[in-house]
Amino acid sequence: MPELRQNIITREWVIIATERAKRPDQFCRHAAAEDEHPIYDAACPFCPGNEHLSPVQNWQYPEEGPWQIRVVPNLYPALTGNEPARRSINGIYRSMNGIGIHDVVIEHPEHNLIFPLMTVRQISDVFHAFRARYRQISMDERIEAITIFRNHGKSAGTSIVHPHSQIIATPIVPAQIRQRVEYATRYFDDNGECMFCRTLQDELSDGARIIAETPGFVSFIPYAALSPFHIWTFPRRHSASFESISNEEIADIAANISVVLRKLYTGLKNPDFNIAIRSVPVKDNNPEYYHWYLSIIPRVSTAAGFEIGSGMYINTGIPEQSAAFIRDTVINE
Amino acid sequence: MPELRQNIITREWVIIATERAKRPDQFCRHAAAEDEHPIYDAACPFCPGNEHLSPVQNWQYPEEGPWQIRVVPNLYPALTGNEPARRSINGIYRSMNGIGIHDVVIEHPEHNLIFPLMTVRQISDVFHAFRARYRQISMDERIEAITIFRNHGKSAGTSIVHPHSQIIATPIVPAQIRQRVEYATRYFDDNGECMFCRTLQDELSDGARIIAETPGFVSFIPYAALSPFHIWTFPRRHSASFESISNEEIADIAANISVVLRKLYTGLKNPDFNIAIRSVPVKDNNPEYYHWYLSIIPRVSTAAGFEIGSGMYINTGIPEQSAAFIRDTVINE
Repeated sequence: MPELRQNIITREWVIIATERAKRPDQFCRHAAAEDEHPIYDAACPFCPGNEHLSPVQNWQYPEEGPWQIRVVPNLYPALTGNEPARRSINGIYRSMNGIGIHDVVIEHPEHNLIFPLMTVRQISDVFHAFRARYRQISMDERIEAITIFRNHGKSAGTSIVHPHSQIIATPIVPAQIRQRVEYATRYFDDNGECMFCRTLQDELSDGARIIAETPGFVSFIPYAALSPFHIWTFPRRHSASFESISNEEIADIAANISVVLRKLYTGLKNPDFNIAIRSVPVKDNNPEYYHWYLSIIPRVSTAAGFEIGSGMYINTGIPEQSAAFIRDTVINE
Repeated sequence: MPELRQNIITREWVIIATERAKRPDQFCRHAAAEDEHPIYDAACPFCPGNEHLSPVQNWQYPEEGPWQIRVVPNLYPALTGNEPARRSINGIYRSMNGIGIHDVVIEHPEHNLIFPLMTVRQISDVFHAFRARYRQISMDERIEAITIFRNHGKSAGTSIVHPHSQIIATPIVPAQIRQRVEYATRYFDDNGECMFCRTLQDELSDGARIIAETPGFVSFIPYAALSPFHIWTFPRRHSASFESISNEEIADIAANISVVLRKLYTGLKNPDFNIAIRSVPVKDNNPEYYHWYLSIIPRVSTAAGFEIGSGMYINTGIPEQSAAFIRDTVINE
């Protein structure tokens, strides 16, 4: 018998499709010949020596000498420009000039380094770049929301091999973020607690969907995950904004997701995936009802007409089985 | 300069990415050798002669003799069973037994017939099947919402060649449908008119995004389309439920989308696509504030980390250009 589950954070219902469920290892990537790439590619705009191919950089680590990480404006930005926000409302047509910021975080000089195989220190450095830019960008009065994300592999939406992530800052709050904040606020009003803190406690006491625990973070597959191996990484400390992450927490989340990503890499054979950091709208400061978190979404299934038509998902992986499979995948520590 | 646009029906903002926009013909499918399939495949569960491979059928046309269309339960149903709905609420964990209905509509006996190349009469017959099953299913007291959809091609989520669509009836109202109804209700309360009727009028008087007009239906690319060539087909007559479609309207929508689908087939070289019909929750009857419609979504772009992290989309097609390209594509009438 299939089961319907609701995620109280998103209010989304998902069909856990037991009748058509696959074994966790059936989601393995059918690796065509493993793509081989050189450590340096003279044609790559992100490789050392080609810095002139990018617009003037926004941030670099270390500050002096050869860079380990650099943050540059995207050459083909989704949003850009220094002018003020201008709304236009013409009957039902609402629009705005496409101002905002679109950064590329070049995560390492080596062209062919694979994010899940980076050292904890390297991942930690990437999060320092995220925080630095988040803080700089949030000073821009025009910006309402900042999304930090990473695409790994072609089906996750990237064609550039060189390891990089992106930051897009928008002059509006995306409808979905606004909605989630509303749900969380209502939950707080009705229950007097943060919905995310409650979820974390309940997931920890249940245990069946936990993948990795570190002192500061917990990675788990949500009870009503929309797709197989959809993973949430929650900070244990209540905080609505990614901006507030401490140095200690940066080292900790890097250690936590390094384990998760290497287990996914080994267990599912280097699947394509996306990572996204969801944070409160920047001007909401740090309210007690919202909680930032990171999502890791392996692209092992395809949304089809039902998902598009209803907004509901059919998950052919059973969250407890998927979590056990990843948890039990052995990696070299 | 990029542009941000808001869709008032979904409240979603989209980035129209002028800096990275492609020409409409760049979304053409890079056809690998065109897939050739036989008119009959002895191994196909949907081909005539293999009726015994499906569970007992729910509907057939014509009623007697060899079938032209048949509707059968999905052999691997996402939802199934005759038992009553049972909710379980355990702290934050909300679940329900996976009851419901999951039909397959086998659209034609020929194994290799391509939906966009069907005759208007054949498409019209498929819509008769949709309406018949919609009416039957909505008599089931346990059902709250019915989604009718079609997946064409691998990237749209299907691996079965034989032409078919699907119907899934759920014992809950999907969160996204509930939300849209709420938005539409609020718009009605604030403005005293149906938000969809207003959108249709404004799109018609603007004209730039219209693709096909017939006496009963209008197909257009929404002003704030989330992806290139995302098309909405609205009935001109106000009605919240697909159930109310008349025989005349069935013939009309078939003629309308036949033009749209053949133009997409020709202009974009047989792209993968999804079709979905969005209707009001079945027990809401036929309110004045909602309006059913059909979506056609060619799968020519990939949602990546930004879309997953924010719920916002980046559209690399400019709606007016995409509409003009499809409108101007010449097909044999």
